[in-house]
Amino acid sequence: MSGKTISAIRVGDQAQFTKTISESDVYLYAGVTGDLNPAHINEEYAKNTFFKGRIAHGMLMAGFISTVVGMKLPGPGSIYLEQQLKFLAPVRLQDTITARVEVKEIDTTKNLIQLETQCINQDKKIVVDGKALISPPKKKRT
Amino acid sequence: MSGKTISAIRVGDQAQFTKTISESDVYLYAGVTGDLNPAHINEEYAKNTFFKGRIAHGMLMAGFISTVVGMKLPGPGSIYLEQQLKFLAPVRLQDTITARVEVKEIDTTKNLIQLETQCINQDKKIVVDGKALISPPKKKRT
Amino acid sequence: MSGKTISAIRVGDQAQFTKTISESDVYLYAGVTGDLNPAHINEEYAKNTFFKGRIAHGMLMAGFISTVVGMKLPGPGSIYLEQQLKFLAPVRLQDTITARVEVKEIDTTKNLIQLETQCINQDKKIVVDGKALISPPKKKRT
Amino acid sequence: MSGKTISAIRVGDQAQFTKTISESDVYLYAGVTGDLNPAHINEEYAKNTFFKGRIAHGMLMAGFISTVVGMKLPGPGSIYLEQQLKFLAPVRLQDTITARVEVKEIDTTKNLIQLETQCINQDKKIVVDGKALISPPKKKRT
Repeated sequence: MSGKTISAIRVGDQAQFTKTISESDVYLYAGVTGDLNPAHINEEYAKNTFFKGRIAHGMLMAGFISTVVGMKLPGPGSIYLEQQLKFLAPVRLQDTITARVEVKEIDTTKNLIQLETQCINQDKKIVVDGKALISPPKKKRT
Repeated sequence: MSGKTISAIRVGDQAQFTKTISESDVYLYAGVTGDLNPAHINEEYAKNTFFKGRIAHGMLMAGFISTVVGMKLPGPGSIYLEQQLKFLAPVRLQDTITARVEVKEIDTTKNLIQLETQCINQDKKIVVDGKALISPPKKKRT
Repeated sequence: MSGKTISAIRVGDQAQFTKTISESDVYLYAGVTGDLNPAHINEEYAKNTFFKGRIAHGMLMAGFISTVVGMKLPGPGSIYLEQQLKFLAPVRLQDTITARVEVKEIDTTKNLIQLETQCINQDKKIVVDGKALISPPKKKRT
Repeated sequence: MSGKTISAIRVGDQAQFTKTISESDVYLYAGVTGDLNPAHINEEYAKNTFFKGRIAHGMLMAGFISTVVGMKLPGPGSIYLEQQLKFLAPVRLQDTITARVEVKEIDTTKNLIQLETQCINQDKKIVVDGKALISPPKKKRT
């Protein structure tokens, strides 16, 4: 149950997670975070906005990035230090979002890696762009 | 149901949201995002980590910042453009977290504001620090 | 709040529970169990599979059998000993599933009953077949 | 996003998934399945039973087996054909359960594998035992 140590990570390594965003995802996320902005949970309001309907929380997409970091690359034992996010386009209910991370820089001395982090919809549009700074799990001493 | 326009916002304005992090918050967040990292859902694993027990997802804290932005300052109608996050300390189950934003810069020409965004625990420790770039709702034409 | 004792149960007794499978049922089930198989939560993937779209978890149907056993026949106080399951056909979102149990054998000496357990969709197709071994609640001593 | 084909599977291969069972897991599972047996959701009733408190649904444990089959061994694209379950011991709230599968038999002609499937608690006690019959994903033709 331990992720990749820095010696097992190469620039260019990638990992991803994909989910179709359900109405229940948005509603549960709204309930847990308290972000009950009408853009997310009020269809009567939302259909008169620029987006013509309810949209998902941008920060939910950021959660999928965290899923890839914590589960796959580097995986369990990683320490999440920094994340920069640019919200580029809305995500609608029933969009299918792929969170994708790619290793861009490795600093073995400080045990740090920098990841490009993107969320992409079913039409290959980047909806969230950014980068993350992660400390991968250290090798267990024996 | 519309938030503050830029003319109603002043440098130094603040808003916040506070929640005690329940086990169900962490479990629902894990289920919605797919982040089933054992640090969050496996107490047997977690009690042997540096943190001595399960911790909440850092990105859940970022969700609380989004709650303040989308609900209070500036509120509904805002466009969330950018967020920078530094995860400084772990959040344990039953910690009480306050997400707090403060207006730092206002650019009326571009209709942009920059917020300092922090999450602080019950011991006044900053667990997440960062800043956000937001476009407040525009005045409705009549 | 106690179910039927073995003396009140006859071979041929039946009970059932019916639910239309919502997207939120499948998503909550995925979140609770951690079964984020793309067949269940990724429509872009699922529409290219043999089933042409997302399907429910087969083991969710088994949960409905447990509902009938624990709530109706025999009901509260039963001890669930064994369950055999054959997954015969996929269940799609919005299918209406009836879990149905029928008493097949009764062993009063050992306080055991054997049930035929089936889940049937809205087209009368058996999607899950199997049998269960249950110990009904014992009579309370007074 | 495809699991192991039969040619990549060996007798003795293992995979597992672990989760601490939260109250919210049991309550969400109860809500989705409709299994509102008081043993699961009524502490006043449950504290007077043999188990001295609320217990989790046995079939929730079976869901964790499905998680390992569908996510890891063999993984996405598998067809779940049969599952036998023996419920050997109760699972209490806050127990940490590991669902573990091990390949016992491989039939390459029929593209079938048989798995031993067990759920084990934090005290190494087997709470659910059984076996599964799975058809792994077939090699994609090109």
